[in-house]
Amino acid sequence: MPPRTPAQPRRRESSRIAILDATRDLLGEVPYAKLTIESIAARAGVGKQTIYRWWESKGAVVLDALLAASESAEGTGIELPDSGDLTRDLKAVLRATTAEFADPSFSAPIRALMIEIIADPALAALYQEKLQQPTHQAILTRLRSAQHAGQLRPDADLTLVIDMLYGPLTQRWLLHSTTLDDAFADALVDGVLHGFA
Amino acid sequence: MPPRTPAQPRRRESSRIAILDATRDLLGEVPYAKLTIESIAARAGVGKQTIYRWWESKGAVVLDALLAASESAEGTGIELPDSGDLTRDLKAVLRATTAEFADPSFSAPIRALMIEIIADPALAALYQEKLQQPTHQAILTRLRSAQHAGQLRPDADLTLVIDMLYGPLTQRWLLHSTTLDDAFADALVDGVLHGFA
Repeated sequence: MPPRTPAQPRRRESSRIAILDATRDLLGEVPYAKLTIESIAARAGVGKQTIYRWWESKGAVVLDALLAASESAEGTGIELPDSGDLTRDLKAVLRATTAEFADPSFSAPIRALMIEIIADPALAALYQEKLQQPTHQAILTRLRSAQHAGQLRPDADLTLVIDMLYGPLTQRWLLHSTTLDDAFADALVDGVLHGFA
Repeated sequence: MPPRTPAQPRRRESSRIAILDATRDLLGEVPYAKLTIESIAARAGVGKQTIYRWWESKGAVVLDALLAASESAEGTGIELPDSGDLTRDLKAVLRATTAEFADPSFSAPIRALMIEIIADPALAALYQEKLQQPTHQAILTRLRSAQHAGQLRPDADLTLVIDMLYGPLTQRWLLHSTTLDDAFADALVDGVLHGFA
């Protein structure tokens, strides 16, 4: 194997960025079913094989493209507000998520990705590692701060709290329920926190 | 239009049953993606057009086939146990659901149907009308009985209680979480009921 030249890692990184940018652009232009590895490669100006070398499936590229978008939009990481009032902070976060989910132009690519994840345990594992775990860590940090402040029981199962906050919301969204609004987000936060306060 | 002869409704009903039986049999034999309207028609001994006349999509046939199966297996309707102890009854029900979901041979067709529902708002509306609403009614009946017995707050939002019980469970199942077991079902029931007791 020849020694790696200094140009290679940089070229790889610029191809990677071009692929993720092309994927994100196409997600906004064509229905998910029409998005193909071929169309991503053409838009990014790379060969199909370059994409297959780094990603196992279309779903895996889309996951990374959505991750890259959320990282550049929100800075380096995920962080929850900490006003000292857990109820208020969680309602703000869940209202924002609810509004995003209720807007099909925003949530259509995420819905399409969720469908692939539900059908594909390997992609589900990637999703858990790259998106769900970092998100859960951010929420756990906020919940632990509330626990220290005495707003949550010391023995509360915080992973269960997260599932009880997001499970009902995700289920309503995925099943096209019409009642996905601020009132639901607020009632959910009140219901969960009442049980663990 | 000629007057309907007495034989027609009976013939229609027997075709309908043959189609639903064929669908259920095939669901156990081939992966969902390989299940086609053609294969259902061939197995049922009817023409493709007969199926398209009564159902809009493969998902709609599968929904009715699964409904017919659950009705014949469990009697005429859905009913929750009522031992007088809500926690115990809900844990029994959620443990059973968890075990069914955790068994891919049982849950694979339901997962495939869920994927179609998530992608198709019209099928989602059918699912809500035919399966989700009757199930919710049965759970509501049990929760109201607990409310009258003073085990749930009089002002508890019972629809929210149902979502908080089933949302986290459904989400873990759909996303291929490994932690879908009795301990989770029990913790979920305890967490929800603690908030609404």
